[in-house]
Amino acid sequence: MVKVRIEVSYLDGVEDPEALTIFKNLSSLGYDSVKSLRIIRSYELDIDSPHYESVARDIGQNLMINPVIHRMKIVKVEDVE
Amino acid sequence: MVKVRIEVSYLDGVEDPEALTIFKNLSSLGYDSVKSLRIIRSYELDIDSPHYESVARDIGQNLMINPVIHRMKIVKVEDVE
Repeated sequence: MVKVRIEVSYLDGVEDPEALTIFKNLSSLGYDSVKSLRIIRSYELDIDSPHYESVARDIGQNLMINPVIHRMKIVKVEDVE
Repeated sequence: MVKVRIEVSYLDGVEDPEALTIFKNLSSLGYDSVKSLRIIRSYELDIDSPHYESVARDIGQNLMINPVIHRMKIVKVEDVE
């Protein structure tokens, strides 16, 4: 069993109003050291297949993202003690 | 400038209906090798402070999570080529 994450974020140049709102509020709450903020949505899958990478890529590209506005990254996650 | 992620996920035992729905649909679409699915929401911050970890922990605990249902993890992200 392999743990794989499909990380979905916005492409550069695509505005994320929710992230912008949170960022502005952080500033007004006094968190001045925060210079930017992005929101990333990850789907963490347990995949029981030697082809886990292509399974995850397939799911991500076909079901999880809109390629006009999203980018996708496949990350293998290994738990450590 | 340090890149830090606040990763927010549900505590064990808390149901995530959205993740459950996606998981069921993956099964019916034939992705049988996927054995479970969790959704994680991450806030990726660029923080300009030597105390970046406590800044991120503070923001996460005070603003991003509901401790009754969420767990939080702070992760430092280092970009590589």
